[in-house]
Amino acid sequence: MRMVDLIRRKRDGGELSDPEIEFIVRGYTAGEVPDYQISAWLMAVLLKGMSRAETAALTQAMLHSGEVLDWSSLPRKKVDKHSTGGVGDKTSLVLTPIVAAGGLLVPMISGRGLGHTGGTLDKLESIPGFNVNLSATEMRRVMEACGACMIGQTASICPADKKMYALRDVTGTVESPALICASIMSKKMAEGIDALVLDVKTGSGAFMKEEAAAAHLAELMVETGERMGKRVVALLTDMDQPLGRAVGNALEVIECMETLQGHGPDDLTELSLELSAWMFYLGDRTSSVEEGRNLAREMIDSGSAFRSFRQMTALQGGNPEALSDFRMLPTAHNQLVVASPASGYVTQMDCEKVGLASLVLGGGRNTKEDAINPAVGLTVHRKIGDKVNKGEALCTLHYDDDRQLSESKSLVEAAYKLSATAPPARRPLVRRVIGRQ
Amino acid sequence: MRMVDLIRRKRDGGELSDPEIEFIVRGYTAGEVPDYQISAWLMAVLLKGMSRAETAALTQAMLHSGEVLDWSSLPRKKVDKHSTGGVGDKTSLVLTPIVAAGGLLVPMISGRGLGHTGGTLDKLESIPGFNVNLSATEMRRVMEACGACMIGQTASICPADKKMYALRDVTGTVESPALICASIMSKKMAEGIDALVLDVKTGSGAFMKEEAAAAHLAELMVETGERMGKRVVALLTDMDQPLGRAVGNALEVIECMETLQGHGPDDLTELSLELSAWMFYLGDRTSSVEEGRNLAREMIDSGSAFRSFRQMTALQGGNPEALSDFRMLPTAHNQLVVASPASGYVTQMDCEKVGLASLVLGGGRNTKEDAINPAVGLTVHRKIGDKVNKGEALCTLHYDDDRQLSESKSLVEAAYKLSATAPPARRPLVRRVIGRQ
Repeated sequence: MRMVDLIRRKRDGGELSDPEIEFIVRGYTAGEVPDYQISAWLMAVLLKGMSRAETAALTQAMLHSGEVLDWSSLPRKKVDKHSTGGVGDKTSLVLTPIVAAGGLLVPMISGRGLGHTGGTLDKLESIPGFNVNLSATEMRRVMEACGACMIGQTASICPADKKMYALRDVTGTVESPALICASIMSKKMAEGIDALVLDVKTGSGAFMKEEAAAAHLAELMVETGERMGKRVVALLTDMDQPLGRAVGNALEVIECMETLQGHGPDDLTELSLELSAWMFYLGDRTSSVEEGRNLAREMIDSGSAFRSFRQMTALQGGNPEALSDFRMLPTAHNQLVVASPASGYVTQMDCEKVGLASLVLGGGRNTKEDAINPAVGLTVHRKIGDKVNKGEALCTLHYDDDRQLSESKSLVEAAYKLSATAPPARRPLVRRVIGRQ
Repeated sequence: MRMVDLIRRKRDGGELSDPEIEFIVRGYTAGEVPDYQISAWLMAVLLKGMSRAETAALTQAMLHSGEVLDWSSLPRKKVDKHSTGGVGDKTSLVLTPIVAAGGLLVPMISGRGLGHTGGTLDKLESIPGFNVNLSATEMRRVMEACGACMIGQTASICPADKKMYALRDVTGTVESPALICASIMSKKMAEGIDALVLDVKTGSGAFMKEEAAAAHLAELMVETGERMGKRVVALLTDMDQPLGRAVGNALEVIECMETLQGHGPDDLTELSLELSAWMFYLGDRTSSVEEGRNLAREMIDSGSAFRSFRQMTALQGGNPEALSDFRMLPTAHNQLVVASPASGYVTQMDCEKVGLASLVLGGGRNTKEDAINPAVGLTVHRKIGDKVNKGEALCTLHYDDDRQLSESKSLVEAAYKLSATAPPARRPLVRRVIGRQ
């Protein structure tokens, strides 16, 4: 088997067999197939596509390039959720303790924010002492004690994906549904889970802005998971505006703690409950999604979910007191209210611009090497459908350094579209559910 | 300027500016842009194409990655010919001395054979002592003495092309008209010529088997040359069967010397004269192609062309006596006649198979590192339109080692298609002329 022949076949629109895809992944991981051949192949894959069978084979090969976590000593079902990323998208911090409190195991491996979107690890690290870099042994100890653990990717998980993602990042080969699917699904399958709920974002703040493209990715991931013997469902959800009102790491932790205590924003609460409900259902904890919703609601109302998050925080080295006393979280020194230049109804938001408004204040990363400031970000006061009068607040910027302040303010102003007439029809938060239910 | 952004733009079908293409070529040559980014970009170029302006910019940038030969001390016009490669395609050895004898300068830089096609350098090296690896100074001395010189690519000519071609070879990115054009034209322009005649082959023995693809490449090369201020014409010529009767290095040298002395095969003679005529015309030596034909014919009839080749051979270290006494050339020890399995007219030849029949005997290379045997090859006795009776010779194989003999014989047998009825209509050798004439 010669790599150049496999590149040429893909270039000409052909299909590769399972052993051929395994040859590529194994050879690349072992350093026998050079970067320059892989990047040409990746570009051919991006432009010519991959069949469902090829996508599953790639996922399988990347999964088996490293360790698969083994939870057989813990008899409960293991479930997880993955989001394709958005602005203010913070449900992981809400649903993980809900689902753990409800009796399932959640061995969650998350990522960091990049570009206009935030990342779970960055949010967790704004809690003083919270350690996301646990060894497999430490993770097991936390899981045994509280049923959930939230960590970053370790070196032993999917090394092929790590190497390939770094290459895709610098060769313009990120935006391939097949490659995105294989990257996400191999890492999630390496968690050793039984079921997975995918939160596939669509809209102005999502990576896949078109609903059709998001649905295609969702279907691909669901089918790939099913081919690997897992129960997988994808919720296609709205990212035409930020989820909740907080954008920025510590600000989002505060909002999550409020939500876990029953007084979070409606949309964040609703989506967290919905995703939890599906996790309960796919993890065989409840016999319907409806029952799952009730159980999730109960976990909040009883305080069990909030206690579960406090316990996990403590087990991962964080200070649980900071989850109630928000003065212990990083706090920006200054605030600036961005006022509306006109009166009317908010008809549209360029949600990516809102994410960038936080990024430029230091709340996000342009490149993986950038440091972030956990304290900064935005509070979103007006969302789609809201009425605003001229001079009233659209957002509040939380900032430490005023060098990028005017850029951030301009981004917020440009993000809003107002209309003097009636508000737009409200679109549902969950647009579609994809997968065998 | 970031390479990844340029890759993404090309991936999405966009156009790159001249400075952007120069950034890529310059960065790659200097080792600042890594192989893995270039190979992803090359694949995007292959699949998305390049505009005429981009192709010209790439050619220009590759040309200026190295030295451009300067012949300003020699006042005559410099012309050259380039062929896209075929089987038995040996016109360079005939037309170079014709054109030099006719008063123009021919600073020809050629390549080696690869796959089923032969290469000028390999043919020349079958002449005892002939040295194709001359320095710039040695080349100048030969040019001054006899008006022509035939050498291989030096390290100082188009280093970007050399590096990029090696990468294309292992990343499945060879077959792009824009990249082929830039590679050919940058090297030819580096010869410091005023005019160029392109012999673009089409048919079963050509790299571009479809006439439309060959015509597209021809137009691209002509336009690129014109954008660079050169007179360029492309002849789209037949490669549905070998040119002449000899395939194999020393065998082809013999046929060329016979042609230079006025008794070569008709097709080789005709095409060599036609290409020479265009070189004379584009090099302002004659005021029409017709006059060029007459001058070329005169150079053969007078013996001037043959004397010119003898002189060049001597100046490049070769033994000119071998050009008359063919026993001094490498000669295969054995011959095998491949007989026709049936009677009829030859209606078709798979010309690539004929080339491969020579390759497997040792006359060509599968990879650039392979050594070749200059003595072996084929004599083609029957060509398209010829009548053959069962048991009569189709070809004679010239071989030293009989290990690949049966494979070579099978290739020849499979290459011929016979019909019991009438012979096919003869197609013209020159199918079209492309370019402003």
